[in-house]
Amino acid sequence: MNNFELYNPTKLVFGEGQIAKLKDLVPQNARVIMVYGGGSIFKNGIYDQVKAALEGFSVTEFGGIEANPHYETLMKAVEVIRNEQLDFILAVGGGSVIDGAKFISAAVKFAGDPKEILHKRMSIRDNAIPFGAVLTIPATGSEMNSGSVVTIAATQEKLAFGGPAMFPVFSICDPKVIISLPKRQLQNGVIDAFTHVMEQYLTYPIDALLQDRFSESILQTLVEIGPKVVEQPENYTLASNFMWCCTMALNGLIQKGVPTDWATHMIGHELTALYGIDHARTLAIIAPNLYKVLFSAKKDKLAQYGRRVWNITGNDTDAIAREAILKTEAFFAEMGMPGNLSSQTPDYANTANIIVQRFETRGWAKLGENGIVTPDKVKEIVELSY
Amino acid sequence: MNNFELYNPTKLVFGEGQIAKLKDLVPQNARVIMVYGGGSIFKNGIYDQVKAALEGFSVTEFGGIEANPHYETLMKAVEVIRNEQLDFILAVGGGSVIDGAKFISAAVKFAGDPKEILHKRMSIRDNAIPFGAVLTIPATGSEMNSGSVVTIAATQEKLAFGGPAMFPVFSICDPKVIISLPKRQLQNGVIDAFTHVMEQYLTYPIDALLQDRFSESILQTLVEIGPKVVEQPENYTLASNFMWCCTMALNGLIQKGVPTDWATHMIGHELTALYGIDHARTLAIIAPNLYKVLFSAKKDKLAQYGRRVWNITGNDTDAIAREAILKTEAFFAEMGMPGNLSSQTPDYANTANIIVQRFETRGWAKLGENGIVTPDKVKEIVELSY
Repeated sequence: MNNFELYNPTKLVFGEGQIAKLKDLVPQNARVIMVYGGGSIFKNGIYDQVKAALEGFSVTEFGGIEANPHYETLMKAVEVIRNEQLDFILAVGGGSVIDGAKFISAAVKFAGDPKEILHKRMSIRDNAIPFGAVLTIPATGSEMNSGSVVTIAATQEKLAFGGPAMFPVFSICDPKVIISLPKRQLQNGVIDAFTHVMEQYLTYPIDALLQDRFSESILQTLVEIGPKVVEQPENYTLASNFMWCCTMALNGLIQKGVPTDWATHMIGHELTALYGIDHARTLAIIAPNLYKVLFSAKKDKLAQYGRRVWNITGNDTDAIAREAILKTEAFFAEMGMPGNLSSQTPDYANTANIIVQRFETRGWAKLGENGIVTPDKVKEIVELSY
Repeated sequence: MNNFELYNPTKLVFGEGQIAKLKDLVPQNARVIMVYGGGSIFKNGIYDQVKAALEGFSVTEFGGIEANPHYETLMKAVEVIRNEQLDFILAVGGGSVIDGAKFISAAVKFAGDPKEILHKRMSIRDNAIPFGAVLTIPATGSEMNSGSVVTIAATQEKLAFGGPAMFPVFSICDPKVIISLPKRQLQNGVIDAFTHVMEQYLTYPIDALLQDRFSESILQTLVEIGPKVVEQPENYTLASNFMWCCTMALNGLIQKGVPTDWATHMIGHELTALYGIDHARTLAIIAPNLYKVLFSAKKDKLAQYGRRVWNITGNDTDAIAREAILKTEAFFAEMGMPGNLSSQTPDYANTANIIVQRFETRGWAKLGENGIVTPDKVKEIVELSY
């Protein structure tokens, strides 16, 4: 097990009817900017619940934060905060809105061009505006972590940053919000959480026995409930377990003391930036092919995953590892994910070269645990994904 | 799944060599009181590591905090802090020393008789002196939770309290500290952590799928490593997994959204208060008998535990549940735990009546999830433990 630090000060308020607690969670006398996305909160009743809970507070609204939030949009919110001297951000939305709130929080008092936060992948430690969240789409874990991904639309770059000041002060997770979500978003959420766990688990064995079992616990639960929650989002047992899995998949806990990969995400981000493919769908396209290309480095962990998550029996490590990849592909297909890039865009033919070039331009010569995902491996993975 | 709030701001610093980070973790210019126990830290080198890391800090030392820390001893530390106007407590020790630091932290500025904190089981929300910890004995989880148990020696009462201000600011967990621990303390630590999980897991099913699997993950890992770590404490893989299991067993995570029991602890505390039996050993004496007496209420979860943790197969829930209790007793015996009270004290004959009377005097008429552990059940459990 590697040395680690675990610090997560977000207060998570989980369960049915918890949105009403906003009135106690938002600091008294706060001048609030409420940021949200495309307006689904007006249709599903969440806007009304939030406004009712915030009666008596000064609230300025800022809508229109898009999926894969744009730097350009977020900077408009920064201007509103500066002009109106607001001091608390309430994000009401999914991972994109919460990620957007993190960037806004970091940018308001940033000395210099806020684009540097993204291009230099800065760690924000102070001078951030406090923010809380009401989660409306379980998927990314952004409600309980300090990471964020923002897209610069002008240059088609999807870039990550974070830092200890980027934890939400609180996040409210009411599983009932999923009832009104489109099936596609629920499918995406399950696969997003599943892949988050895989990035932190499917590397090489490091004798982190408990972390492995925690990761497998989340994977087993997503396999158990994933196909059902998509069909029965009104089932509270399914909804609550789904939502809790999504948070635990990326709130930092399971990555402590273990190597992490994240190459699937880095490649997937490029597919979203280039072609606008849903984040989770890019992960589903890339992940199994990454496991195939990096088979020799990952096969021990793939076999452990096959045995424990998919109950594959036998003594042949390679065979179990290979079957585990097939099981993963079948699960992704069952969850409505595309199996390849060519089904998502007609312009796929030169994608591998474009992505490798973009990585090299940014100076990211190697990805993955121990830098095992070299540019030639990236090319091989992406081409295998066509 | 029940509604819940998860909040845990402790910064956990885990791994070999981390004690040196104290110099960055203790606030600059802090006037530190360093509290510790019986002096084992002088023999195992931890005292020297701590002092080296705190070079340049103002440090007043206060030793002699006993196992099951005494109110009377802790109040002497409170006097030192008040007299010398100290403002940061560093606990260097196991759960007793850290629990003691929590009481000291709460008592220094408490308006009124600090005994009330214990007798009224108060929730401490503010006015506490900040404190951090260097853990020397993995067992209680006190390094990352907000609970504490203190004994009033004069009245032989062992009483719990806590509150959101009772989280350590930081805790350093270096698995190497276990090398010098007596075998008995390692055995106790494994069983303490194991029983902590059982208290939060072995109740009734509530469809908290992920929490159940997290609990089972800790139990499986303790079963896997428990007997080995006692024999090979110098094995870092065993030591680090053991230490991490102990923290995760009682840092609040696995109890979120589920019912909890804690009747084994409440009864066990009385055995320690009455006869001075090690905390973990009281739990091992009581727990299996509590499962037997409350079999009908707990058998569904006992069977799940039997299947998943002990790999018992079959379709007969009752039979699996019964075998799971036997497996638990065998594991406790393998870990050197006593099987009954009469092996620990000659004065056991009237214990059941004494404990029931003490509970009733304090107004605790019922214990356990949903209050299922009534006084007659307590009597039956304790008598079965003779």
